Amino acid sequence: MSNLTYNSFRRNLFFNFLFALLFILNVNQYLFSQNLPAEKFAQYYLLADQIIKSALRERKGYEWLKELCEKGPRLSGSKNSLRAIEWAKEKMEKLNLDSVWLQPVMVPYWERGKNETAVITSGSFSQKHLNILALGGSVPTPTTGITAQVIEIKNFSELSEKKEQVKNKIVFFSRPIDQGSVNTFSGYGNAVDQRSVGAIYAARYGAAGVLIRSVTTKFDNAPHTGLTNYSDTIPKIPAAALGYLDADFLSEALKKDPNLKLKMILNCKTLPDAKSFNVIGEIKGSTYPDEVIVVGGHFDSWDVGCGAHDDGAGCIQALEVLDIFKRLDIKPKRTIRCIFFINEENGSRGGIKYGEWADSSEDIHVAAIESDRGAFTPRGFYVDSDSITLAKIHSWLPILQPAYIEWIRKGGSGVDISYIKNTKSKLGFVPDDQRYMDIHHSANDVFEEVHPREMELGTAAIAIMTLLLSEEGL
Amino acid sequence: MSNLTYNSFRRNLFFNFLFALLFILNVNQYLFSQNLPAEKFAQYYLLADQIIKSALRERKGYEWLKELCEKGPRLSGSKNSLRAIEWAKEKMEKLNLDSVWLQPVMVPYWERGKNETAVITSGSFSQKHLNILALGGSVPTPTTGITAQVIEIKNFSELSEKKEQVKNKIVFFSRPIDQGSVNTFSGYGNAVDQRSVGAIYAARYGAAGVLIRSVTTKFDNAPHTGLTNYSDTIPKIPAAALGYLDADFLSEALKKDPNLKLKMILNCKTLPDAKSFNVIGEIKGSTYPDEVIVVGGHFDSWDVGCGAHDDGAGCIQALEVLDIFKRLDIKPKRTIRCIFFINEENGSRGGIKYGEWADSSEDIHVAAIESDRGAFTPRGFYVDSDSITLAKIHSWLPILQPAYIEWIRKGGSGVDISYIKNTKSKLGFVPDDQRYMDIHHSANDVFEEVHPREMELGTAAIAIMTLLLSEEGL
Repeated sequence: MSNLTYNSFRRNLFFNFLFALLFILNVNQYLFSQNLPAEKFAQYYLLADQIIKSALRERKGYEWLKELCEKGPRLSGSKNSLRAIEWAKEKMEKLNLDSVWLQPVMVPYWERGKNETAVITSGSFSQKHLNILALGGSVPTPTTGITAQVIEIKNFSELSEKKEQVKNKIVFFSRPIDQGSVNTFSGYGNAVDQRSVGAIYAARYGAAGVLIRSVTTKFDNAPHTGLTNYSDTIPKIPAAALGYLDADFLSEALKKDPNLKLKMILNCKTLPDAKSFNVIGEIKGSTYPDEVIVVGGHFDSWDVGCGAHDDGAGCIQALEVLDIFKRLDIKPKRTIRCIFFINEENGSRGGIKYGEWADSSEDIHVAAIESDRGAFTPRGFYVDSDSITLAKIHSWLPILQPAYIEWIRKGGSGVDISYIKNTKSKLGFVPDDQRYMDIHHSANDVFEEVHPREMELGTAAIAIMTLLLSEEGL
Repeated sequence: MSNLTYNSFRRNLFFNFLFALLFILNVNQYLFSQNLPAEKFAQYYLLADQIIKSALRERKGYEWLKELCEKGPRLSGSKNSLRAIEWAKEKMEKLNLDSVWLQPVMVPYWERGKNETAVITSGSFSQKHLNILALGGSVPTPTTGITAQVIEIKNFSELSEKKEQVKNKIVFFSRPIDQGSVNTFSGYGNAVDQRSVGAIYAARYGAAGVLIRSVTTKFDNAPHTGLTNYSDTIPKIPAAALGYLDADFLSEALKKDPNLKLKMILNCKTLPDAKSFNVIGEIKGSTYPDEVIVVGGHFDSWDVGCGAHDDGAGCIQALEVLDIFKRLDIKPKRTIRCIFFINEENGSRGGIKYGEWADSSEDIHVAAIESDRGAFTPRGFYVDSDSITLAKIHSWLPILQPAYIEWIRKGGSGVDISYIKNTKSKLGFVPDDQRYMDIHHSANDVFEEVHPREMELGTAAIAIMTLLLSEEGL
């Protein structure tokens, strides 16, 4: 062994030893400090109890959601959305937060037309009107509409097999959510491709338009909208959602009259991008003001109903977290920042904008929580972080269980906060999912569908998690 | 030591040794056989998946509940309840069960009168009508009603302090459910004494009648009825529930006019006990036909609404468990017996009758499950059994989790099955509780308040538990 090699060996030995020591210390810290000291545990447990009682008894967020819903839907770019943003800013200012600001962001601006029509024009079902809603982002039909034969298709493999029969027809994607999926988000995930990329797939084979069976768990006739995507290299064809019952009707009608023709008129339009805003309010951390816990939802909604569950409630829950800290006189060690992200539904520009800003900011983003799965009774939290951080958060479960949080698991958090890159942990609040897809993106997503106790217990769960993140750090 | 003592000592030693051995073998069995063999686990897990999908996709129970609700309420003794019992028997017979029978039982027969009235008769609020419902079992007022001053009382200690002021007055028990109670059954439990024994306590001090604030979590004006008890040694005074909003009104009115008088007319009556029935249907066990798993709910309801959640749904869930076994061609090892118990609401005569019969029967009652907490999304099971049995049932949790069963805990099961004495385990199905007390015992407990997926997922959870009890035994 040469001197050089020996020195290098010794240096390596030294560094190896140092790393091993640091590793052991570090692992020790995680392995043996997962459980909070008894005094701290007791203190948080008592605070959690106060938070829960305050949320359930005062119902402030529920009342705010009512106010918000009275203002109507909040599609990105719309005048209504700007009025709601103004309302949100004023609401935050009245809460006497340490700072409130608007973060400007340009958003897509799509507008539904007034008279969306789908009517059968041939055979024994002639003149039958079907209940439709243009999908968000759809191109319009010509003013006189498109009249074409309809071909029913269940999935993209069937489409591919029948590609010769699709040309100049309206493709009717009719696969329902599988009711056998316990988790309705899984059921939704397995059916929503028809809505999100159906127009691209159908246009590839020369289709004239697309109708989809609404992606819903409810057997009613309210159509459910949602984003349709296009590809720049494939013709953009008009696309709309049919009410579930009318989808059944059309399917039956096609069995009896396969040559049935349908006329569809959509008069929606895409306007130039519009100026909009994320609405942000915060309580400054008393000990680590530059360390931030984000808690938020998305403030835009689709243009029917009022986006009560999706996601007015999620935003209001986040805001009430701050108010609960205020009314219980909890002065958080770290900064709690409430963000109403704009444009989650059709562009995520708000999330992207905040993420970019966070990258260049001096703030340390410790964690972010999003509530965007409806305001139902709490079940758990999904955590997107490394396993050691997950283990630490999981150790807090007993403090969250009184708010009906049964589990904390690795999982996806939320669309908006996914753009915050340098954060130790992103968390998604997970409430019960059985009723969400009944009303999602439809005219039935209204205030009356939100239950005050279910919503407020969710608020309490998010507030307790925020408290623990703020006081314990990650 | 005498010879006798020595022999006795030896005998004791022998028996002690024998017992110790048996104890060890027994404990071993429990300590080391909690986990199912992999093949069995996999088999149950796959069956559970089929059960869940079948329940959620077919929704048979949900449709049956609709039929049942169209028949109206089912108060014990009423003609309506007998018609519903007939319907239930026919429904069971159509399912091609191994046997279906009616178990006769005499039940109390109380009937509400037609024109229940509460009206303020003095001062500035004169002629204001309040929304009331006589409590179940209440005595009537004289035909011309009782007119009396009203005294507002929050709890029995306040009543005791003010006992001198109560004489000849209507006692208005006004304490609401504490919305801060996360578990609404706890909240209910802490307020329901006003309804269940308020009339006894008030009459003890000479009150003329009782009005209670409805025991509800919803701020609306639908009165919630429920049983009022009397004591044979204390005068029986009429008792009714006020709508929550009218309770608020009365409370405010009393602040402004403490001498306010109110006239109350109740024309309910108690008829002689009537003949009624438990409705019972079963699938015979293929291996242990004399070992029985009971699964049931109570078939009677209050006389407003249609007892959709309380407890039509619980009965229908139990019945669909049998149907699921049939449609999935599961031949249970043990007998699965579905029981619609009569008269849980005001006498438990059905439960008592079955319990007596079970005592004298040759059947071995292995376990009993009751569903009587509404048809909401599953959360868990309460188990009333010794710890070793609880541990065995708890070991099945992973098979139940796909049906959103998060936990299995020691706890109370159900009123009706509590009378089955010689059973290894009694289980109570526990769904989400946030909305139950909104509609409980009121005109709003109707079919439309039941969500198909929530109900059917509950059915699946109960069916899986029934399967495990039947195949594994206890």
